[in-house]
Amino acid sequence: MSTGPRTLFFLSDFGTADAYVGVVEGVIARLAPNARVVHLTHGVPPQDLRNGAWQLYAAAPHLPGGSIVLAVVDPGVGSNRRAVVVETANLLFVAPDNGLLDPVFTLEPPHRAYALENPGYRLKDVSSTFHGRDVFGPAAAHLSGSVTASDMGPAVPVDDLERLGVTPTDGPDGEVWTFDRFGNAITTLRAPEVRPSTVTIAERAVPFVTHYAAVPRGELLALEGSSGLIEVSVREGSARERLGLRSDVSIPVRRG
Amino acid sequence: MSTGPRTLFFLSDFGTADAYVGVVEGVIARLAPNARVVHLTHGVPPQDLRNGAWQLYAAAPHLPGGSIVLAVVDPGVGSNRRAVVVETANLLFVAPDNGLLDPVFTLEPPHRAYALENPGYRLKDVSSTFHGRDVFGPAAAHLSGSVTASDMGPAVPVDDLERLGVTPTDGPDGEVWTFDRFGNAITTLRAPEVRPSTVTIAERAVPFVTHYAAVPRGELLALEGSSGLIEVSVREGSARERLGLRSDVSIPVRRG
Amino acid sequence: MSTGPRTLFFLSDFGTADAYVGVVEGVIARLAPNARVVHLTHGVPPQDLRNGAWQLYAAAPHLPGGSIVLAVVDPGVGSNRRAVVVETANLLFVAPDNGLLDPVFTLEPPHRAYALENPGYRLKDVSSTFHGRDVFGPAAAHLSGSVTASDMGPAVPVDDLERLGVTPTDGPDGEVWTFDRFGNAITTLRAPEVRPSTVTIAERAVPFVTHYAAVPRGELLALEGSSGLIEVSVREGSARERLGLRSDVSIPVRRG
Repeated sequence: MSTGPRTLFFLSDFGTADAYVGVVEGVIARLAPNARVVHLTHGVPPQDLRNGAWQLYAAAPHLPGGSIVLAVVDPGVGSNRRAVVVETANLLFVAPDNGLLDPVFTLEPPHRAYALENPGYRLKDVSSTFHGRDVFGPAAAHLSGSVTASDMGPAVPVDDLERLGVTPTDGPDGEVWTFDRFGNAITTLRAPEVRPSTVTIAERAVPFVTHYAAVPRGELLALEGSSGLIEVSVREGSARERLGLRSDVSIPVRRG
Repeated sequence: MSTGPRTLFFLSDFGTADAYVGVVEGVIARLAPNARVVHLTHGVPPQDLRNGAWQLYAAAPHLPGGSIVLAVVDPGVGSNRRAVVVETANLLFVAPDNGLLDPVFTLEPPHRAYALENPGYRLKDVSSTFHGRDVFGPAAAHLSGSVTASDMGPAVPVDDLERLGVTPTDGPDGEVWTFDRFGNAITTLRAPEVRPSTVTIAERAVPFVTHYAAVPRGELLALEGSSGLIEVSVREGSARERLGLRSDVSIPVRRG
Repeated sequence: MSTGPRTLFFLSDFGTADAYVGVVEGVIARLAPNARVVHLTHGVPPQDLRNGAWQLYAAAPHLPGGSIVLAVVDPGVGSNRRAVVVETANLLFVAPDNGLLDPVFTLEPPHRAYALENPGYRLKDVSSTFHGRDVFGPAAAHLSGSVTASDMGPAVPVDDLERLGVTPTDGPDGEVWTFDRFGNAITTLRAPEVRPSTVTIAERAVPFVTHYAAVPRGELLALEGSSGLIEVSVREGSARERLGLRSDVSIPVRRG
């Protein structure tokens, strides 16, 4: 890992309408006054693990080596789901063990994992609804200093970490992973070296192009998105709306 | 107070669609190049003092000692309402004197207050619409350095500071304080050591539970929220919508 | 230029629902670990050059001398529009050459401009959809250190920079420049020393006042906005809605 300053990248579904994010950053500033916090996004739709996992997958290749990634999308807060820190070659992830990290592990395989059980690295009073403030934020703050991952609690075999059931693939068959805020459908299909002529989504063939302007406004298209995955879009519109896609059922996508 | 770096926590109702927040941070960076700014939230509904006051109440216990809290929700901008800096045991608040700080004073009683009248600590041209940039931001920037609160202007007796009319209470009777972005109703009732079995809101009895999953999806519940107050929620829904609650009338809440 | 720390002010239309902004900041943190990033706003409506240009115009006078302004509103991404760095007396702008900077040049005239063509200051793989991450962010990061503008690529005559067709003016005739999130109509008319009694917009005469509260709630008014331009507003309402204004046609405004 790099020996430069450890930056802490923070992603959550807390939104920014309330001060939840600011409070977590306050806790971090109190415990680790020199830590630098960068906000990846707090706009993950509430409890949407698939969307959060995609955002992490898109961001991870671009973060400085040695960074800490604090990722809190946590529908099981207050239940007995595990909280973990996971070491990879380049990054240190702090997150609930609920599958949120599973897809990013295809880019950054997990080397070691530890449960966040050491009470010395939590707030004294742990609420049942806000572990970002009480458990995950404090762990990330301590890890930005001299505390190591193994100080956090007992080792967890990396094969025991929860899966999400979303796998980036070379295809030819995949599915819609999630949608971004413009209604683009992000698929699990990695864009191949040799470009296909079409992509089939929801039984519809869509031309594969190099940039949006290759089709008229309002038309469907597929292209290689900025995270290296095939995306289905409507030029200056929403593929999600156009195709009437829902996020609670699997939508098959086929290359070619 | 701590002698560590003075972090400046910034809360407002400016939103983030326009560059108002960034401009204030630009002014602060110009006047105090080493100040660190953390954003609590800028999503307070426009001019909603009750909501802003709740956010400050929820955040204050988690901020590093010695921090400056810059809080701008200011329906009276351009009128003759006072602008103040208020010292408490742990924090330094910079805000309009309009009740925004009143509830947080139940946690952090005001020791001394001064009016922001010294023209040396404002911008040269003070607009009639943007005192965050012209008055409050510059004051906070100067206070993060060697300028002291008493340099800002004449002392204001702390008993003269404006009240909001919202008081956190041990109950058993309280009211709805505000709503968060999920439609949870935050009440003024502090959660007691011995948990009640029900909470009555708008003439409806709601079970008091320890976590959301204790009731079926779509059902009403009450629990201790992360700021120690009783909140009324709908699991994976909005209590505000379910109960048809409005924010412009007082809604009584009773514990038990 | 100042020799203080070079702060990087970042404006875009990326929104904050997805991690695009955070990824750009990750790239900057990787290339320039000591750079400080301040977010002006990422809420420019998608591809809205006029709105982005107004935000830059409003912010520029308040930024520390020597700052870098990274401005990405880029409808032409992937086409052959030029990417540039532009030096002014006080600031260094990094942006697509599409008119976005044109109005701010009335405050900060361009001294020298260079095309961002040096492959050493881009990411190795440049996508066709995300030049904020691959071109503009890396350029800004390098410029925050010892790299100079002229290292970036060939000089561009400042007279060749793209125009937007929006010009702040002393009037008496101007037009609506853009709308802020409250529906206030920001005009191109600079507020004069001697206040006019009315402003005419869309064939309607509106009283010119000093502050919102000078008219009853729901009434139209004009005043000097915080950026020194005349704005047309509805007190506690939206001028855009009230007047049925559209952003895709020129709306004449006349002082007096």
